[in-house]
Amino acid sequence: MKRLLLLLLSACLPLLAHAAPATVERWGVFELELTGPSTGNPFTEVNVAAEFTDGHTTVHVPGFYDGDGIYKVRFSPDAIGEWRYETKSNRWDLTGKRGSFTAVAPSAGNHGPVRVFNTYHFAYADGTPYKQVGTTIYNWIDAPEAVQEETLRTLAASPYNKARMLITQQPTAYQEKYAPPLWPFVGTPPHDWDLTRFNPEFFRHYEKRLEQLLELGIEADVILLNPYGKWGFNSMDADGDERYIRYVVARFGAYRHIWWSLCNEFDFLRTKTDADWDRLGQLVADCDPHQRLRSIHNGHRIFDQTKPWITHVSMQNGAAVDEPGRAEMYRSVWHKPVVYDEVKYEGDSHFRWGNLTGAEMVHRFWCGTVAGTYVGHGDYFFTVVEDTWTSFGGKLTGTSTPRLAFLRDILETSPAMGIDPIDKWQDTNTGGQPGLYYLTYFGREAPTEWTFKLYKNGVTDGQRYVVDVIDTWEMTITPEPGEFVTQKLDNYHYVDAAHRTVKLPGKPGMAIRVRRLGDDGKPTTLLVPVD
Amino acid sequence: MKRLLLLLLSACLPLLAHAAPATVERWGVFELELTGPSTGNPFTEVNVAAEFTDGHTTVHVPGFYDGDGIYKVRFSPDAIGEWRYETKSNRWDLTGKRGSFTAVAPSAGNHGPVRVFNTYHFAYADGTPYKQVGTTIYNWIDAPEAVQEETLRTLAASPYNKARMLITQQPTAYQEKYAPPLWPFVGTPPHDWDLTRFNPEFFRHYEKRLEQLLELGIEADVILLNPYGKWGFNSMDADGDERYIRYVVARFGAYRHIWWSLCNEFDFLRTKTDADWDRLGQLVADCDPHQRLRSIHNGHRIFDQTKPWITHVSMQNGAAVDEPGRAEMYRSVWHKPVVYDEVKYEGDSHFRWGNLTGAEMVHRFWCGTVAGTYVGHGDYFFTVVEDTWTSFGGKLTGTSTPRLAFLRDILETSPAMGIDPIDKWQDTNTGGQPGLYYLTYFGREAPTEWTFKLYKNGVTDGQRYVVDVIDTWEMTITPEPGEFVTQKLDNYHYVDAAHRTVKLPGKPGMAIRVRRLGDDGKPTTLLVPVD
Repeated sequence: MKRLLLLLLSACLPLLAHAAPATVERWGVFELELTGPSTGNPFTEVNVAAEFTDGHTTVHVPGFYDGDGIYKVRFSPDAIGEWRYETKSNRWDLTGKRGSFTAVAPSAGNHGPVRVFNTYHFAYADGTPYKQVGTTIYNWIDAPEAVQEETLRTLAASPYNKARMLITQQPTAYQEKYAPPLWPFVGTPPHDWDLTRFNPEFFRHYEKRLEQLLELGIEADVILLNPYGKWGFNSMDADGDERYIRYVVARFGAYRHIWWSLCNEFDFLRTKTDADWDRLGQLVADCDPHQRLRSIHNGHRIFDQTKPWITHVSMQNGAAVDEPGRAEMYRSVWHKPVVYDEVKYEGDSHFRWGNLTGAEMVHRFWCGTVAGTYVGHGDYFFTVVEDTWTSFGGKLTGTSTPRLAFLRDILETSPAMGIDPIDKWQDTNTGGQPGLYYLTYFGREAPTEWTFKLYKNGVTDGQRYVVDVIDTWEMTITPEPGEFVTQKLDNYHYVDAAHRTVKLPGKPGMAIRVRRLGDDGKPTTLLVPVD
Repeated sequence: MKRLLLLLLSACLPLLAHAAPATVERWGVFELELTGPSTGNPFTEVNVAAEFTDGHTTVHVPGFYDGDGIYKVRFSPDAIGEWRYETKSNRWDLTGKRGSFTAVAPSAGNHGPVRVFNTYHFAYADGTPYKQVGTTIYNWIDAPEAVQEETLRTLAASPYNKARMLITQQPTAYQEKYAPPLWPFVGTPPHDWDLTRFNPEFFRHYEKRLEQLLELGIEADVILLNPYGKWGFNSMDADGDERYIRYVVARFGAYRHIWWSLCNEFDFLRTKTDADWDRLGQLVADCDPHQRLRSIHNGHRIFDQTKPWITHVSMQNGAAVDEPGRAEMYRSVWHKPVVYDEVKYEGDSHFRWGNLTGAEMVHRFWCGTVAGTYVGHGDYFFTVVEDTWTSFGGKLTGTSTPRLAFLRDILETSPAMGIDPIDKWQDTNTGGQPGLYYLTYFGREAPTEWTFKLYKNGVTDGQRYVVDVIDTWEMTITPEPGEFVTQKLDNYHYVDAAHRTVKLPGKPGMAIRVRRLGDDGKPTTLLVPVD
């Protein structure tokens, strides 16, 4: 009925929105399409937006010009029910267009956008925990089409639930052979650009890839700016930067799986100051009605992560996840989630940032995990045909991926509240939730025995636990027979009443998982938030 | 002549400053004494200050009431020459008093106040490097007089060049036996205080001890507030806190060796919020004309060290100096000097914060050192007669002190620019200055050999170096015979042209020092700032 009305109105008013859907899933994308002026430079001369309201919340949503006289406004409703809208513009023929749609219950697999949860962690908007196991595919949308399709197949079979990706190209030798078919601005590479005109075709292609990531359940950590290349995209003036950011945020921001990474290795981009970054980061926060996650990724120098527009820390520092005691340290500084998005890549590069063994990559993930942080993967084995996974996607070559799938499986049954250091600055190898769940990672140590011992928080005499021995490389979980029953040892710890110990194989990369038994004799269910 | 004039004026104007010295060393203390009202409550009702100028710089210096109708203004001139002053007050009889004095060249041993130098380090105002090797003697001025005197003798024979000390008492069993003879406020312990009236006798005694530390060349890290005790001093209202801080800063701030520690374990003081701490920290900055160093020391939760009033990080986190890779991490976050002021204490306590072995304490200092940071010592062996060094001073019991003296000797001939990580987030065990000086600490590793290898920064082919093997526990420096001459190895490193290696004894706690040879065949002199 509403759809009919809309169509009727559309027939009467030639410039009214057309083809707007009558229903959209909660957290889905409602796209309003409008026809307007195509003369002059619509990118700079025409503003269009719409105000959406469901009677409780009113949201001002900037739109964008999609070429050929078409303007779009994309909005993702965060509540079920009827939403009405009215357009705003500096042009009369785009102003005051009204309509409505109904946001319906999300379909299976749509958990909403990922938000910060419990200070250091993430969860989808519907409360489902999100345990970040990310990877890096910087220029995959610039690879030949066949490689892009292969990338999607590789991702589908992988454990990765977040992908870091650039918007503007990084120049490489590979690109000299396979020049990017599409560029974000109108013009001719390498330098002849009209930086006031975007190329809608580029963005439509990017959006197609974003939608495919969404279907795969993979969050897209979109890197707005980067220091690479001399196309002119990273040395725009303040107006140019602002126009670009507003355009990208208006186009992509309604997709619920978008995260904004303001810049990769921001400190390597010498044309901008910290004040510029602060201004641009705040701009992203201001112009994004959907309030997607926001970060800035460092090279050698760490940005001031206390800035309120930064929702989580996106850190490059491989050394910091070489042992858990280090990995925790930034957490306590900023009281925000820490994602070690670049920890060097697994690979065979002659550059030392791309020469980790598979075991070292897996080690870094486990160090980050028990320290209550998250880690990102990269795969940097050069193949003549596809360059590297981390640069252009394609195939994965390294040996870490199945082990990271194994880790992700463990994380998916770990506490909804997240893994936090249990005894911070003391036992740096153990994370979990006090009195419920413990994960101890021994790293390069090769112990032959572990004494059942829990820090006092949350523990009382007579609690029952089960213990698993985990081989992080062989991907085995071996339950230790029977139960462990707590008994106070001293002012700090509890041990098993029978002083039980657990044998370990005396090799590196081992972990111990300790789970509390409920009254039903099963490990406590931890996928709902605990008090 | 000026003195005569002053005396003559003094005779004419009964309320004029008397006994003010005619000359004071640069960075010494000029004390102006005034007579004023003694009725009512001079602490709350009378403001007095003086404006000092040498024609170039004008400084507004708050004064304080010292009891018995005596008011004082203390000023430390930072430039040689004639300084004139004029008093300001809300009382006519303390207003408009004028005079002058001459600041003369400092005597030997007076290097001025310590300032932040080269971002991460410290130097005296005259440019002399200050290599912090601190200790902790919280309540030493509350110990019996004989123990206080013994503390000074112990300090004089020690390597420590900074002492952390409380102002208001920390209650202990020891104090039940030896109750503090003096309290900062007028009243009767434990709770019957007039928090609007200070006890000048307490402060005069404190100043005597401060002056004795100054004579010993020891910086006084004075802790303004603390969470301990229930005397009411740590639960004053905002006016009380402000009055207290202004009084202490006016009394002590002119001593050039004063550092302000706003609070010990600030987060354990539940009566204040972060906003309170920010306000009080800013107050210290605002009311201190001498701009002494300022910090705030944490318990379990780290304060936002980006606050502009914080000059350096005063960190409690023992785990952070358990290996150099951790110690560096806070440095890159805040770009300020990091002093690990509490890293657990050497001791035999049943508390785990006071049970380090001497070797562990020495290890933590070395970890902090090669990471470009500074560490503080504590000694927590309980003796019935004196309690512990760290609580009440007296004697040192632990075994770390001579090893820290050995470390300090090494630091005193290390680069004036400070020891910085050479290859941050890569070789975490090496600090120094590129192409000049390298200190590598192997920690718990027990290598039997070290290959001469330097990171590329500052290094070119054909540079000549000498190498010393350092045993941090046995306190030996063993020069390796001959020279090492650099030759490029790969994109990252230089080695010795003859591929020389250095034998090591295969025990923990070893270090390597590498120093560049100048044209004169001697290790480069590093005690002047290098470019």
